[in-house]
Amino acid sequence: MSKINFGNYFEDFQIGQKIVHPLPRTISDGDVSLYIAFTGSRFALHSSDVVAKQIGYEKKPLDDILMFHLTFGKTVQDISLNAIANLGYAEISFANPVFVGDTVSMTSTVIGLKENSNGKSGVVYVHSIGVNQYGNEVLNLKRWVMVHKKDHSTKSDINEIPTFGSSTPILDEINIPTIKVVDTDATGGKYFFEDYEEKERLNHPEGITIDNSDHTLATKLYQNNAKVHFNDHMMKSTPMQQRLMYGGIVISTARTISFNGLQNAQWIYAINSGNHCNPTYAGDTIYAYTEILEKIEHKREDLGLLRLRTIALKNKTPKEIENAKDEDGKYLPNVILDLDYTVVIPKKSTKK
Amino acid sequence: MSKINFGNYFEDFQIGQKIVHPLPRTISDGDVSLYIAFTGSRFALHSSDVVAKQIGYEKKPLDDILMFHLTFGKTVQDISLNAIANLGYAEISFANPVFVGDTVSMTSTVIGLKENSNGKSGVVYVHSIGVNQYGNEVLNLKRWVMVHKKDHSTKSDINEIPTFGSSTPILDEINIPTIKVVDTDATGGKYFFEDYEEKERLNHPEGITIDNSDHTLATKLYQNNAKVHFNDHMMKSTPMQQRLMYGGIVISTARTISFNGLQNAQWIYAINSGNHCNPTYAGDTIYAYTEILEKIEHKREDLGLLRLRTIALKNKTPKEIENAKDEDGKYLPNVILDLDYTVVIPKKSTKK
Amino acid sequence: MSKINFGNYFEDFQIGQKIVHPLPRTISDGDVSLYIAFTGSRFALHSSDVVAKQIGYEKKPLDDILMFHLTFGKTVQDISLNAIANLGYAEISFANPVFVGDTVSMTSTVIGLKENSNGKSGVVYVHSIGVNQYGNEVLNLKRWVMVHKKDHSTKSDINEIPTFGSSTPILDEINIPTIKVVDTDATGGKYFFEDYEEKERLNHPEGITIDNSDHTLATKLYQNNAKVHFNDHMMKSTPMQQRLMYGGIVISTARTISFNGLQNAQWIYAINSGNHCNPTYAGDTIYAYTEILEKIEHKREDLGLLRLRTIALKNKTPKEIENAKDEDGKYLPNVILDLDYTVVIPKKSTKK
Repeated sequence: MSKINFGNYFEDFQIGQKIVHPLPRTISDGDVSLYIAFTGSRFALHSSDVVAKQIGYEKKPLDDILMFHLTFGKTVQDISLNAIANLGYAEISFANPVFVGDTVSMTSTVIGLKENSNGKSGVVYVHSIGVNQYGNEVLNLKRWVMVHKKDHSTKSDINEIPTFGSSTPILDEINIPTIKVVDTDATGGKYFFEDYEEKERLNHPEGITIDNSDHTLATKLYQNNAKVHFNDHMMKSTPMQQRLMYGGIVISTARTISFNGLQNAQWIYAINSGNHCNPTYAGDTIYAYTEILEKIEHKREDLGLLRLRTIALKNKTPKEIENAKDEDGKYLPNVILDLDYTVVIPKKSTKK
Repeated sequence: MSKINFGNYFEDFQIGQKIVHPLPRTISDGDVSLYIAFTGSRFALHSSDVVAKQIGYEKKPLDDILMFHLTFGKTVQDISLNAIANLGYAEISFANPVFVGDTVSMTSTVIGLKENSNGKSGVVYVHSIGVNQYGNEVLNLKRWVMVHKKDHSTKSDINEIPTFGSSTPILDEINIPTIKVVDTDATGGKYFFEDYEEKERLNHPEGITIDNSDHTLATKLYQNNAKVHFNDHMMKSTPMQQRLMYGGIVISTARTISFNGLQNAQWIYAINSGNHCNPTYAGDTIYAYTEILEKIEHKREDLGLLRLRTIALKNKTPKEIENAKDEDGKYLPNVILDLDYTVVIPKKSTKK
Repeated sequence: MSKINFGNYFEDFQIGQKIVHPLPRTISDGDVSLYIAFTGSRFALHSSDVVAKQIGYEKKPLDDILMFHLTFGKTVQDISLNAIANLGYAEISFANPVFVGDTVSMTSTVIGLKENSNGKSGVVYVHSIGVNQYGNEVLNLKRWVMVHKKDHSTKSDINEIPTFGSSTPILDEINIPTIKVVDTDATGGKYFFEDYEEKERLNHPEGITIDNSDHTLATKLYQNNAKVHFNDHMMKSTPMQQRLMYGGIVISTARTISFNGLQNAQWIYAINSGNHCNPTYAGDTIYAYTEILEKIEHKREDLGLLRLRTIALKNKTPKEIENAKDEDGKYLPNVILDLDYTVVIPKKSTKK
């Protein structure tokens, strides 16, 4: 029997199956510096221990999206190595902060299976939970991917599709210390929860071009080993003819670009849903705009939440795109990400 | 009102105005490793805690140029985001060493304004001071940039130009521990202060080619967000037709290349002036040569100072260039940096 | 006299000569993160302090190949800066683990010299020993390189060639803590010493494309300053017409790819010999397969050793290559590395 792990096929999954993903990862200052090098991220909370202490932390917590990548990367070998497509995400939450020195690991449970009518593939739905070295939850997500079947001749007709909330529930307890003070000179942003309005749109002016080394170094750092991102020799013989950028790179870049206008929204509370609308390749320049979908009051007096929709674009500026979709509801070809997420932002009372 | 920060225009600056730049930065081991990866720097003091202790430090201090980039990067959003050109630097000094774990931040004061006769732009002169978390000065610099005006129809005719010293003054106190011993087996260089002669020229043999990811990763690490370095889509429609390399990358590369012949000159005391003579792009190979402008004795017996002029070249070796300027005093097209700076170098008495 | 160090030529070496290589290097978390970014390495022992503690360490040790590069890099300036070719390695061993915070340095002794009959070059054989800050040996290697002569008109006819063992001897004492437990859920591999068979072949399915920034950033991080890797301007006028990838990058990539099928073989005990069969350039996709040459029992009951031969390929999958050499014993053009090395792998008794 071969000792090679070729990843799982549709038939390898069963409802209720629990998968412990290998490769716990101790997070270091090196990961944090690399993330800044990959993105140019300017959120002060993740850049400065002094700012983090002012706000109420002992030291700077990890950027939520960096933590997401380092934890999520573990699932690829088991869940999506043979994926045809990453179809969607839902109910992603970030229960506890992660710090340098913490070790994260992840476990998934299969919560749904749907064989496709063509008999060649199926959709696998998983619920994945990431924890730190104390077993405290740091990431909770559901996602579904289309994977190949090994055997195209036999059909199971399995069709168990879970239901997902249209948004991640917001809990009474938010694991962010009571915000002592937000120094707008340090964060670079003077706007707080009260300043935003529903339906407001922010056209972020920055554009960032991603080259091959940028995205492959990042994806390797995350130990995400999906071949489509690394193997140019293999990809040359596909319709794409080149390496495909890991969708997480687009999320990171869009989040970084969204800084301009959302400087004080330094915490991602949840990702309600995400859609990688079109592929992104090396050489593409990423832009983004953000719509304020909803203002959400919380029982905590120091903060509120904003439900945001950030649309990432390739090679088009936000001013050139009014709607992400055309009249038929289809994403425009330059739209590469439609991300519905919820951020925490302090209230004016915290302003220094 | 838009929440987007588009940076400042000429009319936004006033003489005496003080700007606190956002984004204090805690410096980590990750930043140090990345700097070695970007440059290949071989100065032993910044590479080894053992060497640093031998010399007299508790642990290795940061490379001065890395500290410069990490601190300077903060000023871009406020000072030079709308810059047409970075015109010059003067009187740059490095008062105190910076170590991993320190948090640096920066404040600028506008010290000069000169509107250009075309009414479309003006020159802004600033004095910027970087400090660590204890408020101790770690960087002090003056620079001037040409920035766009918002309104081309109204002229202020402001013309207040500050004067600059032709070199950074050298103080009686130099914040370097008394040098106990310099182990030439560790530093790789056997030449000390006494060995150099004024007008001596060192043709450094190394050449380093910089690719797009090299310079964009570095510039993002420094959180320098000037668009010309990152946005290829935007740059395609400019006369440059591609991303412009951040001038600091050239300074770092030239300093690294200057190691060969100046191995024991591990401290930059000051940058007297700097001129980015021609643009540098991905794919260019950087070379450098150094002239000893002046030998400067200091009251300290363990060290002296060398005033140096390092000329960085693109795609020409030092042997091919006798003078950086042509007969009309114009820089040759392959000359990309003319850096006048002062280094500290131990005296022979410290030699092991 | 020029202060520039042009490296050593054949005439500069003498039998018995001892060379202390400059630039001790303190290893940091940044180096470790960068190594994961360069390779995508998935060996759990080097990725997680939690896994390292389970196995029996206080914290995660450095990946042996990363330590090799960081230590070996120091020898280039003195030994191989003027190398025409790196001809071979022998008897490489890794006596003690290295951890973040350790400072490594290296010393070489010339053990052989052979002038080539053309009078233009010669082969230099060195024995290099790397130590940590306590003087404990961490790397021991022999290698031979062909270097230029300064003077082509005078011949010495020196011909002192040392003999090498066909493999690094295996000692009774192996400096690995008694392996308490191997959690296969964490390492991602379920195979132990007993599961492998001599002559077994593992066709690793992963392929990794290396771009220019990937290999130049890594080689600069290792402070390996051989010009052929960095100076595209110079290389353009050679038959290669481009930068040559440092052979160590191929070793790292092949080792990373070999993870799939050898997940629990997390320690390199020795490299018996290594041959860079063909050059590798940016854009090449690296694949690898591994043959089990020998199963070696050890007096320790918790582990055994596997002598492996990993063949790295460029732009060909392992399935396309049956033998690395053709009928005349010449390496096929797509074969880039023939590495004979010995790994430590736990026995089944340690399995959790």
